[in-house]
Amino acid sequence: MLTPEQNERLVRTDRGTEMGTLLRRYWIPALLAEEIPEPDCPPVRVTLMGENLIAFRDTQGRIGLLDEFCSHRTASLFFGRNEECGLRCAYHGWKYDVEGNCVDMPSEPPASRFHEKIKQTAYPCVELGGVIWTYMGPPELKPELPELEWATLPPENVFVSKRLQESNFMQAMEGGIDSSHVSFAHRFNMDDDPMHAGTPGIEYLKADTRPKFEVIESDGGLLIGARREADEENYYWRITQWIMPWYTIIPPFGTHNPLGGHAWVPIDDETCWAWSINYHPTRPLREDELDAMRRGEGIHAKYLPGTYRTAANKTNDYLVDRQAQKDKRSFSGVEGIAAQDFSLQESMGPIVDRTKERLGTSDAAIILARRRLLAAAETAAKDEPLPGDRAEHHRVRSASVLLPRSVPFQEGAKDALVVRPGEDFVSV
Amino acid sequence: MLTPEQNERLVRTDRGTEMGTLLRRYWIPALLAEEIPEPDCPPVRVTLMGENLIAFRDTQGRIGLLDEFCSHRTASLFFGRNEECGLRCAYHGWKYDVEGNCVDMPSEPPASRFHEKIKQTAYPCVELGGVIWTYMGPPELKPELPELEWATLPPENVFVSKRLQESNFMQAMEGGIDSSHVSFAHRFNMDDDPMHAGTPGIEYLKADTRPKFEVIESDGGLLIGARREADEENYYWRITQWIMPWYTIIPPFGTHNPLGGHAWVPIDDETCWAWSINYHPTRPLREDELDAMRRGEGIHAKYLPGTYRTAANKTNDYLVDRQAQKDKRSFSGVEGIAAQDFSLQESMGPIVDRTKERLGTSDAAIILARRRLLAAAETAAKDEPLPGDRAEHHRVRSASVLLPRSVPFQEGAKDALVVRPGEDFVSV
Amino acid sequence: MLTPEQNERLVRTDRGTEMGTLLRRYWIPALLAEEIPEPDCPPVRVTLMGENLIAFRDTQGRIGLLDEFCSHRTASLFFGRNEECGLRCAYHGWKYDVEGNCVDMPSEPPASRFHEKIKQTAYPCVELGGVIWTYMGPPELKPELPELEWATLPPENVFVSKRLQESNFMQAMEGGIDSSHVSFAHRFNMDDDPMHAGTPGIEYLKADTRPKFEVIESDGGLLIGARREADEENYYWRITQWIMPWYTIIPPFGTHNPLGGHAWVPIDDETCWAWSINYHPTRPLREDELDAMRRGEGIHAKYLPGTYRTAANKTNDYLVDRQAQKDKRSFSGVEGIAAQDFSLQESMGPIVDRTKERLGTSDAAIILARRRLLAAAETAAKDEPLPGDRAEHHRVRSASVLLPRSVPFQEGAKDALVVRPGEDFVSV
Repeated sequence: MLTPEQNERLVRTDRGTEMGTLLRRYWIPALLAEEIPEPDCPPVRVTLMGENLIAFRDTQGRIGLLDEFCSHRTASLFFGRNEECGLRCAYHGWKYDVEGNCVDMPSEPPASRFHEKIKQTAYPCVELGGVIWTYMGPPELKPELPELEWATLPPENVFVSKRLQESNFMQAMEGGIDSSHVSFAHRFNMDDDPMHAGTPGIEYLKADTRPKFEVIESDGGLLIGARREADEENYYWRITQWIMPWYTIIPPFGTHNPLGGHAWVPIDDETCWAWSINYHPTRPLREDELDAMRRGEGIHAKYLPGTYRTAANKTNDYLVDRQAQKDKRSFSGVEGIAAQDFSLQESMGPIVDRTKERLGTSDAAIILARRRLLAAAETAAKDEPLPGDRAEHHRVRSASVLLPRSVPFQEGAKDALVVRPGEDFVSV
Repeated sequence: MLTPEQNERLVRTDRGTEMGTLLRRYWIPALLAEEIPEPDCPPVRVTLMGENLIAFRDTQGRIGLLDEFCSHRTASLFFGRNEECGLRCAYHGWKYDVEGNCVDMPSEPPASRFHEKIKQTAYPCVELGGVIWTYMGPPELKPELPELEWATLPPENVFVSKRLQESNFMQAMEGGIDSSHVSFAHRFNMDDDPMHAGTPGIEYLKADTRPKFEVIESDGGLLIGARREADEENYYWRITQWIMPWYTIIPPFGTHNPLGGHAWVPIDDETCWAWSINYHPTRPLREDELDAMRRGEGIHAKYLPGTYRTAANKTNDYLVDRQAQKDKRSFSGVEGIAAQDFSLQESMGPIVDRTKERLGTSDAAIILARRRLLAAAETAAKDEPLPGDRAEHHRVRSASVLLPRSVPFQEGAKDALVVRPGEDFVSV
Repeated sequence: MLTPEQNERLVRTDRGTEMGTLLRRYWIPALLAEEIPEPDCPPVRVTLMGENLIAFRDTQGRIGLLDEFCSHRTASLFFGRNEECGLRCAYHGWKYDVEGNCVDMPSEPPASRFHEKIKQTAYPCVELGGVIWTYMGPPELKPELPELEWATLPPENVFVSKRLQESNFMQAMEGGIDSSHVSFAHRFNMDDDPMHAGTPGIEYLKADTRPKFEVIESDGGLLIGARREADEENYYWRITQWIMPWYTIIPPFGTHNPLGGHAWVPIDDETCWAWSINYHPTRPLREDELDAMRRGEGIHAKYLPGTYRTAANKTNDYLVDRQAQKDKRSFSGVEGIAAQDFSLQESMGPIVDRTKERLGTSDAAIILARRRLLAAAETAAKDEPLPGDRAEHHRVRSASVLLPRSVPFQEGAKDALVVRPGEDFVSV
């Protein structure tokens, strides 16, 4: 339960807000590389934390992310012509390069130097792991490039999707670090993700629905340990990495299955992009796995054709099927693990009122994540280094392990919790 | 004509407003019993006076009406599982009974007593006359159960419908107590209601379109007398009961036809439920009558399939037919008595600006109804008894009678204006 | 670039605003005559500068433009009965004539004189050039009737259309007085208007895309001269008349082709009517020309059936065709000259933020037009005569001429810039 003021601090991300200043200190997943697939392709609209932007890939393959509205008379560059290493406004022909320089101003006399005074807002971009990332903060504080494991692997080892979520990013992310809901919202669908079916972990999850949580601050965020009964001597530990400001890595189900992860990035205060990633550190994804991911299974979702908006959404009550709910084919009546999550998260309203919550012991990770974000916001206000802003903070893994009852998880799983390139991860 | 302040006092009904406090002192028609037809059926959303609620019928048939949003993390209970005498949130499995007690909290350790501290807002409900009623006021001030005649009859004597109206409840109700518009808005359709065709009253109505109004305060609301010429010795009186806070009973057309009544209940400040009831005190409704009601004739309306929203509505200009208007098949061009009313009421905008009205003698009932409501709001603020809050205030009938010109209507029709169970009502 | 205050002054037009007071001092194109085609036809809704109105043509053909909402209880007169020289409210039968007098009040006693106290707001109307014009200002300041050339010609010489634009009227009008964008937004479509194909002017436009602007204040608005290279001795001048408050006349392409003109009239602050007119001073329009205009070619637009809303609009990204953009069939990818304009104008948002602009020499006319409007608003506040409020201010023509390099355009084209009835206009 937060005060109204704390809630406001946590959810507002426009430029100039406390959280907005914090989030702009990190590299931000901005769009899928596939959205601007080749040089001189059409520009696309991108909105991040309330800023309307236009992304394009220039003739040389460089990526530009500019203020959407032309400096001249504020027409949208969405209608711009992407040609000869620049994006040209369709209204009066002003042309910008990927750095926002006005490189041509054909509406003014040939000798005019007016174009030298014009600078379109432009954010640096980088393409990693099938995602185009941008940095929207002060140039002098730009952090190291992201090294989340999935962003460093060969493309054939990774599948990334994004979907529009109609809620503030915080309540989406809180759903992601909340292991407790799995036993309920997904109770009848735990086996449905083809990426973790038939593993011993699933059996432990089903058998013990009241995990005990232990949450520890890591350098880059949180280590969230969920302890379940395994056998007389051992506990089954699922250890989730939360990497600031918005990444999670899902603990594995067997080493033969791909891993999963998420990111939640504000579009504006009432919508966000939910990024979902499957990857395997030591092998390419198989065609059957990719097929399932493309169909929207597991952590991915089914789309309205031609969009990144989900077929099941608020306007159709997420296609809730009351018979499926009755028949215990779906706990909430909504089909699909992803849709089960976002339907409940969106049902709280676009911005959840955290003054009305009653949090229990199962919410320990959520409580700590909020605290770390609010504390980091104060650090950001002082231009100081932040948790999660260094590449080494990203080089971590989640794990699922059996440990003797007397062994603390962070000791017993120590080696399992760091990325060892080329080596497999640890999972029962 | 009201001041802006008076208008605001009259139309706002959220918790904490003056009118909101008044209305919460009465039993409220909340939903049709058919919406939650059987034990353990799916829960449904109900919004009343700005409060988002969830209605469900538990395993034992008891009715629950809970705050829509779970006390834990505010997910909507719309996705809840209605099972074993309680509604279980689909997010983390918290379960509530019809009184709002948290009877299971499976996300917390078995020994936890946290659930004892949780109380979901719950309003008491009762089922009467095919309607589920709720009481949202202070428990110690809960009034007697409603005894409107239609709510006390055998089910086969009654037909109830509800429809969404896109206006504040007040302007809808004002339309209901305004007998004057009948001669205009419904001029070419007075015979269309199969529930009153071919009666002498209709002829009097057509012959004299300038009724003289006499309005008297009754214990429970108002007695609205509309006097028309009948013959040399007699007046034709149509006497409407307005029962506070929002009920009307339509004066009868012949004793062989069913009676009609309405209620207007705020959903929020810009929409309301218009309830329409036909009933006969001494006989079951006939199949042909029920068919007509189900088709949306008379005071009922035609729906968009699967909804309580009308087929003719604001988005389609109420299917206005200019040729029918020209041909004198419809005065306004809108088809159907109900749609003729709500199209005009909604055309004033979601909340009518009463500072711009110019009221005449035909608006006497409206003027007095507003005064009684504003006065009652002051009474409610003092927690004192209210007009319309006692069962005896409900045991009244409307009437249509011929009276000698010298006889005051309230005397001449005295016996006709009270419910006499098992006896027929009075109508020419 | 304006201050936020200047921008607000320029764009707000509700009654009581500075610009609203100015614009109400002129005759206003309110609706097409075809919308109320005959006596006693159905009334239609008209919104102008935030005022909701109802237009009707009475039994004698007189035009009424009344406040939409009945003085009695504010029901919409949209459902009114247009009969026997008046519009009768469908709720209680109050009837108004074209001057807003309440000529019948059948809900009140026959002897009542209440109707004499009722005056429905009514604006005087006149029909000229296929358009119904109204005057919404103080009666004592009503100006001479409009005499824009197209409004004075025989009907067979004129074609008028209107379309809904989803932006403030100012940014639409600024697009109209901005000759510079033609070389860019319409670069690949200059020949597409069948009304000016194959003329020498088109060749000069294509050859020199950096015109030099000279803008001069005229009695009624601005004379906007755009100078392009023609040959060694001559300049090609396109001279546009801007007539206050919102008219433009497009310079001609050959004397055999029709002329074109526009008006932009606020509906509310975020939408406007874009009026488009083709006309020829000395001959009827040909059937092939009318066909093209009806199809939405040239300055007209294609509609959604049954509406004045364009088929290409914000909801469908103006049907942008990226391949057409790539193939240089359309500079922005949008099809049609009109749609190319309004797509860019609307892309700035409903009200452009002029504090963010960076204006160049090509924006000289826009800068001066804003200044004249803001200055005129101060004049209007003093009830003094205004530029553009006299018929003689309307009797002007635009021109396109070749002039020796040493001759100032306003001298060389002097005779070409006034209307000479029955005589052809001047164009190369």
